[in-house]
Amino acid sequence: MATPYKRLDKNQAAVLLVDHQAGLLSLVRDIDPDRFKNNVLALGDLAKYFNLPTILTTSFESGPNGPLVPELREQFPAAPYIARPGQINAWDNEDFVAAVKATGRQQLIIAGVVTEVCVAFPALSAIAAGYEVFVVTDASGTFNELTRHSAWDRMSAAGAQLMTWFGVACELHRDWRNDVEGLAALFSNHIPDYRNLMTSYATLASSK
Amino acid sequence: MATPYKRLDKNQAAVLLVDHQAGLLSLVRDIDPDRFKNNVLALGDLAKYFNLPTILTTSFESGPNGPLVPELREQFPAAPYIARPGQINAWDNEDFVAAVKATGRQQLIIAGVVTEVCVAFPALSAIAAGYEVFVVTDASGTFNELTRHSAWDRMSAAGAQLMTWFGVACELHRDWRNDVEGLAALFSNHIPDYRNLMTSYATLASSK
Amino acid sequence: MATPYKRLDKNQAAVLLVDHQAGLLSLVRDIDPDRFKNNVLALGDLAKYFNLPTILTTSFESGPNGPLVPELREQFPAAPYIARPGQINAWDNEDFVAAVKATGRQQLIIAGVVTEVCVAFPALSAIAAGYEVFVVTDASGTFNELTRHSAWDRMSAAGAQLMTWFGVACELHRDWRNDVEGLAALFSNHIPDYRNLMTSYATLASSK
Amino acid sequence: MATPYKRLDKNQAAVLLVDHQAGLLSLVRDIDPDRFKNNVLALGDLAKYFNLPTILTTSFESGPNGPLVPELREQFPAAPYIARPGQINAWDNEDFVAAVKATGRQQLIIAGVVTEVCVAFPALSAIAAGYEVFVVTDASGTFNELTRHSAWDRMSAAGAQLMTWFGVACELHRDWRNDVEGLAALFSNHIPDYRNLMTSYATLASSK
Amino acid sequence: MATPYKRLDKNQAAVLLVDHQAGLLSLVRDIDPDRFKNNVLALGDLAKYFNLPTILTTSFESGPNGPLVPELREQFPAAPYIARPGQINAWDNEDFVAAVKATGRQQLIIAGVVTEVCVAFPALSAIAAGYEVFVVTDASGTFNELTRHSAWDRMSAAGAQLMTWFGVACELHRDWRNDVEGLAALFSNHIPDYRNLMTSYATLASSK
Amino acid sequence: MATPYKRLDKNQAAVLLVDHQAGLLSLVRDIDPDRFKNNVLALGDLAKYFNLPTILTTSFESGPNGPLVPELREQFPAAPYIARPGQINAWDNEDFVAAVKATGRQQLIIAGVVTEVCVAFPALSAIAAGYEVFVVTDASGTFNELTRHSAWDRMSAAGAQLMTWFGVACELHRDWRNDVEGLAALFSNHIPDYRNLMTSYATLASSK
Amino acid sequence: MATPYKRLDKNQAAVLLVDHQAGLLSLVRDIDPDRFKNNVLALGDLAKYFNLPTILTTSFESGPNGPLVPELREQFPAAPYIARPGQINAWDNEDFVAAVKATGRQQLIIAGVVTEVCVAFPALSAIAAGYEVFVVTDASGTFNELTRHSAWDRMSAAGAQLMTWFGVACELHRDWRNDVEGLAALFSNHIPDYRNLMTSYATLASSK
Amino acid sequence: MATPYKRLDKNQAAVLLVDHQAGLLSLVRDIDPDRFKNNVLALGDLAKYFNLPTILTTSFESGPNGPLVPELREQFPAAPYIARPGQINAWDNEDFVAAVKATGRQQLIIAGVVTEVCVAFPALSAIAAGYEVFVVTDASGTFNELTRHSAWDRMSAAGAQLMTWFGVACELHRDWRNDVEGLAALFSNHIPDYRNLMTSYATLASSK
Repeated sequence: MATPYKRLDKNQAAVLLVDHQAGLLSLVRDIDPDRFKNNVLALGDLAKYFNLPTILTTSFESGPNGPLVPELREQFPAAPYIARPGQINAWDNEDFVAAVKATGRQQLIIAGVVTEVCVAFPALSAIAAGYEVFVVTDASGTFNELTRHSAWDRMSAAGAQLMTWFGVACELHRDWRNDVEGLAALFSNHIPDYRNLMTSYATLASSK
Repeated sequence: MATPYKRLDKNQAAVLLVDHQAGLLSLVRDIDPDRFKNNVLALGDLAKYFNLPTILTTSFESGPNGPLVPELREQFPAAPYIARPGQINAWDNEDFVAAVKATGRQQLIIAGVVTEVCVAFPALSAIAAGYEVFVVTDASGTFNELTRHSAWDRMSAAGAQLMTWFGVACELHRDWRNDVEGLAALFSNHIPDYRNLMTSYATLASSK
Repeated sequence: MATPYKRLDKNQAAVLLVDHQAGLLSLVRDIDPDRFKNNVLALGDLAKYFNLPTILTTSFESGPNGPLVPELREQFPAAPYIARPGQINAWDNEDFVAAVKATGRQQLIIAGVVTEVCVAFPALSAIAAGYEVFVVTDASGTFNELTRHSAWDRMSAAGAQLMTWFGVACELHRDWRNDVEGLAALFSNHIPDYRNLMTSYATLASSK
Repeated sequence: MATPYKRLDKNQAAVLLVDHQAGLLSLVRDIDPDRFKNNVLALGDLAKYFNLPTILTTSFESGPNGPLVPELREQFPAAPYIARPGQINAWDNEDFVAAVKATGRQQLIIAGVVTEVCVAFPALSAIAAGYEVFVVTDASGTFNELTRHSAWDRMSAAGAQLMTWFGVACELHRDWRNDVEGLAALFSNHIPDYRNLMTSYATLASSK
Repeated sequence: MATPYKRLDKNQAAVLLVDHQAGLLSLVRDIDPDRFKNNVLALGDLAKYFNLPTILTTSFESGPNGPLVPELREQFPAAPYIARPGQINAWDNEDFVAAVKATGRQQLIIAGVVTEVCVAFPALSAIAAGYEVFVVTDASGTFNELTRHSAWDRMSAAGAQLMTWFGVACELHRDWRNDVEGLAALFSNHIPDYRNLMTSYATLASSK
Repeated sequence: MATPYKRLDKNQAAVLLVDHQAGLLSLVRDIDPDRFKNNVLALGDLAKYFNLPTILTTSFESGPNGPLVPELREQFPAAPYIARPGQINAWDNEDFVAAVKATGRQQLIIAGVVTEVCVAFPALSAIAAGYEVFVVTDASGTFNELTRHSAWDRMSAAGAQLMTWFGVACELHRDWRNDVEGLAALFSNHIPDYRNLMTSYATLASSK
Repeated sequence: MATPYKRLDKNQAAVLLVDHQAGLLSLVRDIDPDRFKNNVLALGDLAKYFNLPTILTTSFESGPNGPLVPELREQFPAAPYIARPGQINAWDNEDFVAAVKATGRQQLIIAGVVTEVCVAFPALSAIAAGYEVFVVTDASGTFNELTRHSAWDRMSAAGAQLMTWFGVACELHRDWRNDVEGLAALFSNHIPDYRNLMTSYATLASSK
Repeated sequence: MATPYKRLDKNQAAVLLVDHQAGLLSLVRDIDPDRFKNNVLALGDLAKYFNLPTILTTSFESGPNGPLVPELREQFPAAPYIARPGQINAWDNEDFVAAVKATGRQQLIIAGVVTEVCVAFPALSAIAAGYEVFVVTDASGTFNELTRHSAWDRMSAAGAQLMTWFGVACELHRDWRNDVEGLAALFSNHIPDYRNLMTSYATLASSK
């Protein structure tokens, strides 16, 4: 009685980046800030690398929540950008849902701040609407480990696939031969240990 | 094959606060006392804010377990208050179940001390009785992380939704435009990081 | 679509204590030794208090695994005691299964050392044989948190109820009025914080 | 409504060791290196001890990922060894799948680096292909606990059995009497606490 | 060869609160925000309770560092308030040093954000100037435990006394009989466990 | 340039147990309650075993702080017992200091609740009065690790020797041959791992 | 009896970066790699910002230890670069000591990999040679917390000042007015929380 | 005012291995068993590698404490071996002190089980006798972190140098050129990450 493998496909997937705003980021305390910043930018980079349709959305960005972090804005200058006027669950915003539908994709890769609200609510709504949902857990942040694990449990029980940015990149890429340099650059830029491996390798290889 | 989203609705939800008693609180060691006190009072505040029917209950309050913490008593002077004469599972007390039924609500938000008993037992009973159950994990405390995760596993497997007070408030509110000031006050009073964002914002905005 | 509540009943439950042996206990490092010793003895005490049929079993006790801890032996001098000649899964031993059947109980409360073997194997076998299984997680020990959580996941996925000794005692007792002093003594002997509450209460009450 | 026990059988199981390469190991930070090395070699030793068909595979071993750790290579000089030219998911490599099929086994014991990719991807593919999958969590490593628990959740939800090397060995062996010395040697070589028990026992026994 | 006891005296001590600003507080990650907020306000309350001369100072409060948290401002409306135009070490600001001298006190109780800069720099300067320095470690926050312990080591090696707000209050008060109610109120407002003890005691005492 | 070894001597040492009261114990959260209770009773047992003069003292025991834990009272029925009327630092109480002097001992072994107040204050006073002070860190409890380490730093800098009950017992005993059975019983009663070693040894030795 | 404040002065300080090599970095496990990389580059940036004489040195860079991380090399193309032929303690290398002397500075800021060797050895030698030594603890990495704290204890006892890069930058800068933009850029580039504060501030300020 | 550097010299150092016995090792819970075993054997290997005079001693090895671990016995078949008849502090045993004197060394490298007794007592005695003492903290084990840090504080305050086996090896070796292969083998055998670096390097170097 086998279980079908819900596998990411770069031709079927879209990325939803929800509420990575400068103010809200001060609420994130379940992941170290250096690591969290790196994870979010890595997710942005991989979305670009795989040319995945990407949607940006924010909540009340003119108030204390603050603006979208500029790096994400710069990564996706042409992406749909929905500054929600009040809806907490992005899926309650018609423009957002329309933008998702417009991608024509059935696999949604979601990350955001904070996990149990800005990620979990649209994730649960999307599952209910028939999408396959992949939560990027390490590019989503929240108050502490207790809130994180509560949110994970709720999303997992509803059928969400819990993944991390590295797993997403690997599952999308399928085969190194599709582009060795591109994937290696992505890893080198966002995994210090991998960068060190490449540095040592390149130095030694070039010294032959 | 989508999963229906069990989503909190302020017109369908009631709150059950179980055994937050002064003596029993000394047993809670899986959450720091400053944070736990804040979480419990935040849950009380949101129950009032959303006008949710709320039921208080205690176990053996004249003995070592001690009285209900006065802040909760003061928050809900008119709420049904069931001082159980002996039943450990509040759902075994007919007055309690009658009070729940009298609310006419089908979504039960439950928190209490200790998690694996005072929360888990009525949660499991309520699910068996056909209710939708939402456990507020961060307003529920227990001896240590091992007991917490055992209790979570049992409740989750039975279909309980694990949430935290912030997620509950956000899911009930739906849209900031319903009342920006009210929700902001709730967050400012119970999330120091959010209060700081508001302080900085207000100061700068007023200095224009 | 409610889930039936698998609820412990003192007339339907039996206790299986598997391989709490002096040598094997040195392998347990996921729980502090003072706490673990207390949890195991608390489980023994509650089994006696509720007159639950209890079965003791050991693995290779004449070798390095060492003898059953004497306190358990003394608590249950008349209990079935199966010193297994070699079977790692106690359920593979016919005498053990016969002893379980002889209790006539359908709810099995299991604890042992180490969790992923001596507990998980008979738990999975018992579930497959149609029993309801309740694992006492805090009276079961193993090498570290990684091995613990792997074992919990496997047992939970198969339908085992993860509980702790305090939850087991409370679920079996149902109502303080069945015997206030007996349950209070159990808690006072095994929960230092509860003992302190009782000490303060009794001192103040007697000083009136 | 009992759940069938997916139980390892030494006549039905094969072992897949995926990408334990000298370079990739520097990415593993969720398990202490001394412990991780020991766990991986213990898994290798038990595969040999039980004569389980074992398959080795690597990813890009001529580049920064580095060669397979020599100890594993030496343990299995005659095992199928698939140096994948590019496929990230080993199951995408036809030679690998052919080697699995050639074992004639339906139970696959999988470990590798990193957990959420090199283990999870073939695990999910194998489940989808109808195999029973047993993940050896403590012989699989990844970046941190967050990535580990995301990977565990995804695999467990799909039906993988999460186990550790000690549990695998015990479930395969079934009964100490099948070979006391062999199993004891395995434990003595890889569990320092068990070795100490044996040392004390042997010393005292020989001093009689 | 006894060591003189550097003991706080309410007639010799002053309090310096350095840079508890709404923006800078988002940098504090070595203490949970609920606990940290409580500790800082507790220190403010004790300074008022013991009528200790108190000095407030901020760094660049019109910029991103943000304003002093309003609660502190409200607690000390008449206190010297030095908004430093640029000096990072408050002791480099002449007005600040003059305010300290004007108190006529030789014992300086210091807390601030962040520990290794805003606390350590004036602490080291004050010691060099001949003052006795008492650092309130739990009302001082910084990036993480590594930065905290580096700062503690440097200050301790220079002769600073590391204390916490509760110890400071107790050492200043000397004897409960000086004012039982006042000290009890301070503890009840800032130590949830103590408040619970008082609630249980008062309830039981009043029920006689 | 050697440092003299401040070594405990059973003919020169006295034990001071400060404020181990049922209410105050609920404040102790830096040590697990099962372990802490065991450590305190172990210290009591060793004080009796070595016939060390022992002094008990409490703070406000008729109020919320609660009575001395009964076990200590029973261990030392004839010991000086100073119920302080208000002094927070026990050394400020003349009866307490007189009782210390009456022992004629120059080495003071101190433990109590909470560490930074009830232990640190008399420890610092005693050092200033010329005594050698040995703090039993694991029989002294406080709010959290931050308060503990601040207190340790202050006491250590003043010259206190930080020890634990096991080290105190070993340093006092000097040589197992002085009484093998007595010391072994002390360890067996308070160190589960040691008890297990003795159980395995005795079982095997008696089976010869 | 005041202690002189050993205070960093940008005209008296030099920076020594010891063995931050691509291979050796895989040994660093006491700090998360994302954070550690950031800390090291922050130290490099501040050395450049304050125009501090900086010396680079490596150990056996042609072997497994690997090359200096390229970023540091690029930051300091003209700095003295001593590739040590074998000396483990950089101070044993005459060229290195000569380079230090040539700076004419008496305050040495040291960081490296691993802490207890590559940092501690030259730090202890430099102190013995009469220099003031400031260890940048968060830009120095080692195997685990146990090795870190042993190394810190040894260096601190010898008189080294334990600091972190942020404290070093602040102590060198003295006054924001010396260059607000430069220091702010340094912080924005290496402290995500500070960058967020600046983003929110700038957005709001510009919206006036 | 420089501090002399107490630097290990292979011609002045001896190694004391105290009570690494099979039974006592079950008490060690502050270090993971796989890591601890590796650290102890690494210390033994380095003692042999540098031909340091080494002394073995045990406490009551015929009882529950168990025999010296066989690996150490085999490493040093000709070393002085003092099975102490009862003295807890090895320095109280005349044969042990005589063996130390017979080495003619003034630098003593000490490790043992448990840290606060078997290591701290002889360390403090040796310092008092005029020796330079170097404690190998990671080859010394104890009950938990609290007991460890108490022991470290006491030893450090008395002047002991806290080191780890890797630091000891590096300080003794001074210069890789004295013997590259020997030191590399020591590291490869006891540092998995270093072994991996060497494997990758050798593979790539040989592929040229």
